[in-house]
Amino acid sequence: MGEFELIRRHFQRAGVPAPASMVLGIGDDCALLQPSPGHQIAVSTDMLVEGRHFFPGVDPEALGHKALAVNLSDLAAMGARPLGFTLALALPEADEAWLGAFARGLFALADAHACPLVGGDTTRGPLNICITVMGELRPGQAMRRGAAQAGDDLYLSGRTGEARLALELLRGADWALAALGGDALARHPELRQRLERPTPRNGLGGLLGVLTGAVHAAIDLSDGLAGDLGHILQASAVGAEIALAELPVAPALQRLPEAQRLECLLAGGDDYELLFTAAPIARAAIDAVAQACGTPVTRIGRITQAPGLRVVDASGRPVTFAARGFDHFQGA
Amino acid sequence: MGEFELIRRHFQRAGVPAPASMVLGIGDDCALLQPSPGHQIAVSTDMLVEGRHFFPGVDPEALGHKALAVNLSDLAAMGARPLGFTLALALPEADEAWLGAFARGLFALADAHACPLVGGDTTRGPLNICITVMGELRPGQAMRRGAAQAGDDLYLSGRTGEARLALELLRGADWALAALGGDALARHPELRQRLERPTPRNGLGGLLGVLTGAVHAAIDLSDGLAGDLGHILQASAVGAEIALAELPVAPALQRLPEAQRLECLLAGGDDYELLFTAAPIARAAIDAVAQACGTPVTRIGRITQAPGLRVVDASGRPVTFAARGFDHFQGA
Repeated sequence: MGEFELIRRHFQRAGVPAPASMVLGIGDDCALLQPSPGHQIAVSTDMLVEGRHFFPGVDPEALGHKALAVNLSDLAAMGARPLGFTLALALPEADEAWLGAFARGLFALADAHACPLVGGDTTRGPLNICITVMGELRPGQAMRRGAAQAGDDLYLSGRTGEARLALELLRGADWALAALGGDALARHPELRQRLERPTPRNGLGGLLGVLTGAVHAAIDLSDGLAGDLGHILQASAVGAEIALAELPVAPALQRLPEAQRLECLLAGGDDYELLFTAAPIARAAIDAVAQACGTPVTRIGRITQAPGLRVVDASGRPVTFAARGFDHFQGA
Repeated sequence: MGEFELIRRHFQRAGVPAPASMVLGIGDDCALLQPSPGHQIAVSTDMLVEGRHFFPGVDPEALGHKALAVNLSDLAAMGARPLGFTLALALPEADEAWLGAFARGLFALADAHACPLVGGDTTRGPLNICITVMGELRPGQAMRRGAAQAGDDLYLSGRTGEARLALELLRGADWALAALGGDALARHPELRQRLERPTPRNGLGGLLGVLTGAVHAAIDLSDGLAGDLGHILQASAVGAEIALAELPVAPALQRLPEAQRLECLLAGGDDYELLFTAAPIARAAIDAVAQACGTPVTRIGRITQAPGLRVVDASGRPVTFAARGFDHFQGA
């Protein structure tokens, strides 16, 4: 099967209605998008490499989902509404079954967010998936990393650490197997779900973007809560205090030794939850917004004038923790 | 050196003024672009894989140039003005010298087109470069592949075939070496230049986009003149006749045997010239536009009602030629 036929069969979807903002989709030199009058365009790109971001042999349907999810999550963190995305795909071979499943996972999520595939590129090469997503938002509505203010509340959507725990179980980490047993992934299917099919928080992000008078900074958690919070603190020249007792802890994580539980909660990675700051006056509005979009949101701490990140226990004593983000060019 | 430090050092350029349309660049969850009022966004993405699109060990500065050039060329073919681009880069290792040269080639071209790098992603993996470029244009100004009309003139910018000849010489093709000698690449530096540093025709494309009353379809030549013209013919449900005697032939190509010269001219690939159609009434305007932007443009044939592509010699006799585009999932 040729490249053009492969694209046509799996990625051109005759009969699927496209949003009005998509003026022209796949098949020309460029796609054409018509943003709403006066709006800005938000753009983000992520590249997923086999063996680095996902295991060889991972379920292609889950991979299609995740490749788009991590990009939608960036739009959510900015408060932008999805307009469309491009997909560039390097494949070792044109495997029909693999492509069919990948496209299924990809389009199920794309359709749920009214975010059409507008263009792309396919080539032969080591498996590599590069998605660029575009969204729109009103000028001034972006939740930038540098906008946190001392005195802000610190909020987290959902909960952290399950994706990391699933990763450790798949890798066969002794401590994870000892705590949860060899059949942990079978008994806790939600762990693998969190790793392989993260839920981008675009409903929440879009609503928070409307509250930008009171909601200040936001980031999506890809490299771990502490590490990603560090980006907000650095960009905003502030510090933060996290109240450990307030952090939601998934059932499976409650069975871990404390050190590993902390590592998963605070430096887990692959969470794709939103971390954001807001003036205390916005508490009721944020509760209402969380309710409206059905996404749990927890106030986990506050932004401080004093720089650095402190994690404190229920009695206010500092908890020692080595904050570390995931860096693709350091470590193993 | 860590990932963030690597990005900062080579891809964040303090002190380089950005166009006003770039509201926010590298360093947040998304970049923000402000298109001109009422304009549409044109988007295109291309993925370049080592060993497939370029030789291992190719000059990284040329590679940085080419990776962006092939994307800018898609904007040119649509008649869109560049707004900015994202870069996703998988690298086997963080090689300072390589990155420095790659960034130099990339930014030299980006600056020449006022097309800033607005965001990106870096990861470890087999060398892979994925660029997504965004541009803007007025509604109705896009030169779409399906807009060619019977009776249109067919135009080509620059000339075709030199990139292909350079590729064959680098591969050591017998016929190329026999015709041009073993030192051909040294004696014809323009050949390698055309392969490794193609010139995207954005000046011309932008001006043609303004003439869309008379300029109809356009495409940029990446897979060979005949193959890419085929996309216009199919999308427009028309045919075409190319007058072989009108095709500009580079000096090095004049020394090739006829069959190989035709192969290079008509199915060369990697030309990144514009092929476009326009009503005959536009001839003077097109000459003026070509002059204004300093890009040679040649009328090489015409669009016909009868389907299919015919290539004819100076006396109007059909020339037999097997049109074939380059397909990443067929052949070697």
